[in-house]
Amino acid sequence: MQDETLLMMPGPVPMPQRVRLAMARQAINHRGAEFGECLDDINRMLKPMFGTENEVLVISGSGTAGMEAAVANFCAKKKVAALVNGKFGERLYKISKLYSDNVVGLESEWGTPLHLERLKEELENGAEAVTLVHNETSAAIKNPAEEVGKLCKKHDALFIMDGITSIAGDVVKADKWGADVAIVGSQKCLAAPAGLAAVSVSDKAWDNLAEWRPMYLDLAAYKKSAAKSQTPYTPAVPLFFALREACMIIEEEGLENRIARHRNLADAVRAAAKSWGLELFPKLDEFHEYSNTATAICYPDGIDDSKFRGVIKKLGIEISGGQDDLKGKIFRIGTMGATGAPEVMAVLNATLKALNELGYRQEGCGLAAASDILKY
Amino acid sequence: MQDETLLMMPGPVPMPQRVRLAMARQAINHRGAEFGECLDDINRMLKPMFGTENEVLVISGSGTAGMEAAVANFCAKKKVAALVNGKFGERLYKISKLYSDNVVGLESEWGTPLHLERLKEELENGAEAVTLVHNETSAAIKNPAEEVGKLCKKHDALFIMDGITSIAGDVVKADKWGADVAIVGSQKCLAAPAGLAAVSVSDKAWDNLAEWRPMYLDLAAYKKSAAKSQTPYTPAVPLFFALREACMIIEEEGLENRIARHRNLADAVRAAAKSWGLELFPKLDEFHEYSNTATAICYPDGIDDSKFRGVIKKLGIEISGGQDDLKGKIFRIGTMGATGAPEVMAVLNATLKALNELGYRQEGCGLAAASDILKY
Repeated sequence: MQDETLLMMPGPVPMPQRVRLAMARQAINHRGAEFGECLDDINRMLKPMFGTENEVLVISGSGTAGMEAAVANFCAKKKVAALVNGKFGERLYKISKLYSDNVVGLESEWGTPLHLERLKEELENGAEAVTLVHNETSAAIKNPAEEVGKLCKKHDALFIMDGITSIAGDVVKADKWGADVAIVGSQKCLAAPAGLAAVSVSDKAWDNLAEWRPMYLDLAAYKKSAAKSQTPYTPAVPLFFALREACMIIEEEGLENRIARHRNLADAVRAAAKSWGLELFPKLDEFHEYSNTATAICYPDGIDDSKFRGVIKKLGIEISGGQDDLKGKIFRIGTMGATGAPEVMAVLNATLKALNELGYRQEGCGLAAASDILKY
Repeated sequence: MQDETLLMMPGPVPMPQRVRLAMARQAINHRGAEFGECLDDINRMLKPMFGTENEVLVISGSGTAGMEAAVANFCAKKKVAALVNGKFGERLYKISKLYSDNVVGLESEWGTPLHLERLKEELENGAEAVTLVHNETSAAIKNPAEEVGKLCKKHDALFIMDGITSIAGDVVKADKWGADVAIVGSQKCLAAPAGLAAVSVSDKAWDNLAEWRPMYLDLAAYKKSAAKSQTPYTPAVPLFFALREACMIIEEEGLENRIARHRNLADAVRAAAKSWGLELFPKLDEFHEYSNTATAICYPDGIDDSKFRGVIKKLGIEISGGQDDLKGKIFRIGTMGATGAPEVMAVLNATLKALNELGYRQEGCGLAAASDILKY
């Protein structure tokens, strides 16, 4: 039996050994050539994952730092339309309100489709920037980034896209979709340690650079330093070594293969849930899809969240519950990063045991349904 | 011969093996009990190093993030007096101006005493907050934190103290001196990896919490989460493991022993420089001292900075030059963290070779002078 808990959450996710060991190196001078090469390597390897030709800037901070950098640098004082159908959409909405007095929240119930018609109206009414979470893991719903991008382009609005849990695990085409700013977090599909956020910035976004910018998250300072292969403030060097290694692993796998694998794993989890007679949480329409990297499943009546996840944890696996109002109503399984069939079968086995132990009797054989689909 | 460069800069510094290996662990859920214990351990162990009973909050970000958190949360819109005699004092001044329109810079030439008389005047004229860098590594001067604290107390002003390069390497008594906010960086005297900043906050500072606060650096959110042994946003987990290990090593050594060791190493470097006939850069008075953790030495005429440091680097050691206007005028040797006599003798040997190679003939035997002093 493994001695560490297997994380099957929508991040953080298990790290490959090569990534972990990359952190154990001795400290280096982050103003020297060696760190510069590391930063340049990361920048080069992240670009295709973002689907961008724009420079990608790496911040020593969490995904939230990346979100705040995007909003503070490019949305301050603007008329902002914030699309919300989950916790992270809400966070972007909240951050936008910190930096502008003119923010409209276009709120849907969590896990239900975004109001694209209302977005059109807001753009017609002069919205200058739009925030969107591409892959909303709080509800395991994939939002229509391409559609939103088209609307933003048509109305010449800036498009800020949180790709924290989709980039490197799902198709993202920041340039093609017109995402002026896109953000990824290190501990999600990249399978690197937590603590870095990377942000791509279009020329149009730079043209909209805010006059007042915070110091630590001043992206103009990051851009200026990146030209010298540096960061403006001391970087969290071990995390950069690890992220480079993680990017190299992704290059070796091939981005398309990696995305196909993520899709396959999520397909398998959904097939198992449906076969067992469980309901998937997201409500979709023609523009919205299930997440490619996480699955949210409604608890059947009478299953207690903390007991359920307790049984699974005793089996050495951690999954996530619902956040905020969804606490106790759903559970979430992440299939991001370096995971494959062994981990998916392990988490499904534990899920079934927990369901049974708490009195739920499944309909069909979900394990076989998943096994039938799994290719990795 | 060692295969990695020996860093003898004022940070980052070499990390003990235990610290480096602590980072190689598998990812864990940062909302679970294990991370909570790690955070609580760090908090408990940092307090004596700060000399505080106040809670210490840990930010996943560089020292600059810690500085900005201090100013943004507690100095915004206040009348601020910023004491400046080096690069980091200037940075606090610059950050203060981002958050308040009412900031007075009390500027001395870098490496010369601060204007305490002018500070008194500003306090009498209603300054509500004072910023100070305790140990200004850009000039290797130790500023009179206790004196500044007394003046702040007398005038009921908030005292923001950057202890980034003094805490864990020199005597710091935040509570006794009245430092309402004190800041440390992980990659300095703590000998942990770069990427974390810790901030202590007094009750008086909390009473002055700014209404508008940035999201990622909102210390009230860190305080609220710390009560549950968590951080508000995803922490850079491997760095926390490493910092805990680094703190444990400090506990094992004993803080007083560690401070005495730091003083001894800096004494030895200064003795060597003086014996060689070199001039130390800082200009002191009764209130100012040489830094306990870094030494700044003036180049003799005709020694080229980049050639000089190039020779030293070829010998496998990195030291620092001067920053900004001091570029080419001084070089700086850090003696922070886990270093001892072997590293000090190595850097002094390399320094002497470089001086000689570039044509400088020393007066006395600096190596013997250092050897005579070194105890570790």
